[in-house]
Formats: sequence, structure tokens, C-alpha cells
Amino acid sequence: MKFEVTILGSSSATPIFNRNPTSQALNINERMYLIDCGEGTQQQMLRFDVKASRIDHIFISHLHGDHYLGLVGLISSLHLNGRIKPLKIYCPPQLKEIIDLQLSYSETTLQYPVEYYFTNPKKAEVILENQDIIVETIPLDHRIECTGFLFREKKRLRKLIKEKLEHLNIPIEYYSPLKKGADYTAPDGTFYKNDTLTIDSSEPKTYAYCSDTMYNEMYFEQINGATLLYHESTFLNNMLDRAVETHHTTALQAAEVALKTNAKKLLIGHFSARYKTLNELLDEARSIFPETELAIEGRTFMIGE
Amino acid sequence: MKFEVTILGSSSATPIFNRNPTSQALNINERMYLIDCGEGTQQQMLRFDVKASRIDHIFISHLHGDHYLGLVGLISSLHLNGRIKPLKIYCPPQLKEIIDLQLSYSETTLQYPVEYYFTNPKKAEVILENQDIIVETIPLDHRIECTGFLFREKKRLRKLIKEKLEHLNIPIEYYSPLKKGADYTAPDGTFYKNDTLTIDSSEPKTYAYCSDTMYNEMYFEQINGATLLYHESTFLNNMLDRAVETHHTTALQAAEVALKTNAKKLLIGHFSARYKTLNELLDEARSIFPETELAIEGRTFMIGE
Repeated sequence: MKFEVTILGSSSATPIFNRNPTSQALNINERMYLIDCGEGTQQQMLRFDVKASRIDHIFISHLHGDHYLGLVGLISSLHLNGRIKPLKIYCPPQLKEIIDLQLSYSETTLQYPVEYYFTNPKKAEVILENQDIIVETIPLDHRIECTGFLFREKKRLRKLIKEKLEHLNIPIEYYSPLKKGADYTAPDGTFYKNDTLTIDSSEPKTYAYCSDTMYNEMYFEQINGATLLYHESTFLNNMLDRAVETHHTTALQAAEVALKTNAKKLLIGHFSARYKTLNELLDEARSIFPETELAIEGRTFMIGE
Repeated sequence: MKFEVTILGSSSATPIFNRNPTSQALNINERMYLIDCGEGTQQQMLRFDVKASRIDHIFISHLHGDHYLGLVGLISSLHLNGRIKPLKIYCPPQLKEIIDLQLSYSETTLQYPVEYYFTNPKKAEVILENQDIIVETIPLDHRIECTGFLFREKKRLRKLIKEKLEHLNIPIEYYSPLKKGADYTAPDGTFYKNDTLTIDSSEPKTYAYCSDTMYNEMYFEQINGATLLYHESTFLNNMLDRAVETHHTTALQAAEVALKTNAKKLLIGHFSARYKTLNELLDEARSIFPETELAIEGRTFMIGE
């Protein structure tokens, strides 16, 4: 099953030429999900060929402008481009008020329904479950209320050992129960335990998205063992005081989070505009967590490969 | 006196790759003014080296997102970058509510004052006057209330005929009254009329900004004789029905406005995303008004040259 993330923006609040504020597009089994939607996200989608019309779910972490100011424009463009199918937005409740106010003053009546699911910054909750994934909020520690998002692949069905089933002449109508873990009794009464006819599928993959937050162990247990951990890394560790003051994380701290939570791989982003180039941030994180990559705009990362 | 406009964005509501929504930066005698502020205007300023910190006046024509969605981000960035001096915003009153709501939910207390001057879409009014210019609103005819803006250079002082003044030994303290139009009487009683010692300065230049609007003669008298007329041209004239329905103008109509109002030069913009290239729009306008140019992003037009 495809499970990959494309970076649309990776800057923090103040603008810098050629880095856009935060947004990421997830492709999970050919369904598209958008995480955060900073100003200019529409243009970034056009640049990197992410079809806005394919997105049915948008997750907004918090109400600092660099994480949501592109949303009203996107909602409006989908309307102008003829969207009919619903759009689901998972966000702090105040965002609905902001969107509604702007649509009202532009006298826009959307031709498609927007369904809001309000996040609770106080506790982790499942906010979406479909055939592919379960999505939970991750309460973070930022200047204003903020949640990350944990995307967890559903446990896949067991894989049939085809040659064995054919050798035993097991009828096809038993295949579906076997995939789900049922045992099998042959017409002659022979009993076969499920694990003699099937094998376990690969471990479900997870993508943990943590932005914006200061280093705080409160979310460590929930994100433990992430296949890919995205963690904000606004500053170098020589600016730790500034990171604490603004409730952000340094590259070294992000790597510590990855280490302590047993992440398989770390992706760092949300870079301060003070860093024209990003090598130092990458080097600092890799000094203690070598499996680190930069969330460069336009790059796509396969989760679990 | 410098009087020039730099195009930061020229698309209409739906996004298109490499065209940004409407925004223009005016440089009048080294003071910077911003007209409209579509999503991504901050990035466009960085791209075209327009210093956001130098802008003290922002004019917003109306509350369709493609004309103001970049404003909250810009206001916030100025704050983060340490601005202290006041920012003046000329706009529909509802915009203050939108801005205040978003600043409130992001828990941002600006470190500089924002002073609002609310436009009245029903009548032309002077909304700003300083040593260089007078700015009036232009009531337009759009789906929602909308005003354009007329920037009128102030009448300049008369130019001294230096060699004549020196020949007559006129003391320097008389120069300033002469520039303002005073006559001069020499110590021997000889009387000199002002226009024998000075010449008229060049005619004050005007920049008329008309976006968005349908063709409507109600604003023709006010913009008559513009040195440079910017007029929206969303469609080709073969889509006149669509233009009327959406309260926009075709390229041919924009040229008719320029003709009938005796504009010296026409600048067309606000192009629909359906036009990947713009030659047809330009050709259509030039077919009846040859002095037409395209509002291409990054281009700077001198007003009156």
C-alpha cells in the first residue's frame, strides 16, 4: 500500500525567499490528505503536481498563520473549480469561525459541504478511521493550543500460503475467513491452525507529525516506534534559549525525540528564516540520529522504505 | 518625482502556476504604497525586492480573497520582524474584523499600531493626502462592494528661470515665494509678473487603479485623463456574457474605458486562469487602444514615461 508524504512548505513564521510555510500532502493508498496549509499552499500544489481536487481530508495543527492562512483560498478555489464532494477539516474550533466570517464577507456560498471535526488539544483522540488508516491527534506543547497528528496504517489481512491451500484443495470461499485469522477444518475432519496456512502481513507503518512544539516527554509514549517521525526543528541548539522562549525545538532536541521514541527515521522541518542553508541543522540532528532527512519542498518520502 | 508601479500579482480568483493573485507596489517619491494583497504577496515582495518594511499605506479594494488573503500574513511578519512605526490600512470595515479575529486566535499582540481608514463604496472620497499625493476611492461595480483608487500627484511648484533671476540679482529669499506663484517688485520699483520669472511645472500625473468591476460609465468622469489607467481584463470579449455574469470586464471593454476616458496609457491585468498565455488579451485591447501593456508580475511601469 502506498504511504508517502510530499513536502509543500517547511519554513517557520517569517517568510524567506523560496521556502514556503508549513504544508504536507500525504498519499495513503491513493487517497490524499493535507496536513497544515500555510499561505501559498495552493501555488505549491500546482508546482509539485499535487491535485487539490483529490484531497478529501485536511488537518490543521493550530492557529498560527504559517499553518493555516492558505486554507480559505484553497476552499474558495475548490468551489470555483466546481467541487461537489464533501471536504473534511480537522482543526481547532475557532478556525470554523475564521473561515465562515471570510466566506460570509465575500458572499461565497460553497457548492460543496465542508464538515468540521474539532480537535481537543488536551487529549489524544482518534479523529478519523477508514479502511486504510486510523488518525489520532497528538497533544503538543506550544505557545497556543496545538495538536500533531499520528497516521497509523491499519493492520493488514494475513497473507495466504497459496500453494498449500491449493495442495489441500481448500475451497475459495474459505480464503476470506483465513485472511482474517480463522482456522480451517477439512471435510475429513483434519484441523489446520490458521498460522499453518497463512503468514502475518508486515507490521503497520506509522507517520507521526509533530509541529509546533517544544521538547516535552508528554507525547513520547504515543509516538513511540514511528516508521517516520516528522518533528519541527526551528533552531540550532546554540539557540536553545530562544527555542524554549518561543515553544519550539532545536535540531538536536528533535533528534533526541527520535532516539528516545525509537523512531525508524526522522524528518526535520519548520526552519527559521535565519538559516539560509540547512546543512548545519541536518548535521546537528545526524550527530546523534543518523537516519535524519530535511523536509525540503518538493521532496517525497516513502514511509517505511 | 519618482512615480512607478511594480506588479506583484495579476491573476484572478482561481490559482494558476506562476501567476499570483492581485497586488501592486507603488513607489511615489520613495514612499511605498501597496494596493491589494492577494495570497502569496509576501513571497512576491521577496522575489521582486520590494521591502515590506518600507510600506506605510495599504489599500484593499474589496473582500474577495484574491485581493486580501495575503494581508494577515504580512501584518504578522512585520510584527515578527520588529516593526514599530504605524501601518495605515484603507479598506472595507469588515476587514478589520477579519484581521482582529485571526490575530486574537493566534494570541498575537502587534508591537506596532495599525490604523484603519474605512472606505465607502457608495461615493468617491479623498482618503489620504500628503506632501506628494492625494488618494481618492473610485466606487466600482462588482458582485460585492468594491472601490478602486486614484493616485493624483500634487501640483508641483513652479520652476525658476535661474539665469533670469541671477541676471536681475533677485535675492534667494524670494525664490520660495516665486515657486509658489508670487510676483516680484525690484528695489527700483520695476514690477515682474511671476510668469516672466518662472515656468509652469509639468502637469500632475495620475494613476487610476480599477479592479474588480464590470464596464460601467459611472466611474468614467472621475478617472478621465489618467496618465496610467490600470483596468481589470479578466476575459476575452468572446466571453462577454461570463464577464457580465461575474461582474468583470473583457480586454476589449477595458480598452474602451481607456479610449472614452482619454487615458494616456492602459495596463490590463486580473487575467482568468483559463488563459495560459496572454497575447490574445493584449492584442484585443490594442486593436482599439494601442497604448496598452500587460500587468506582468515583476514588471515596473513608470507613470508618465
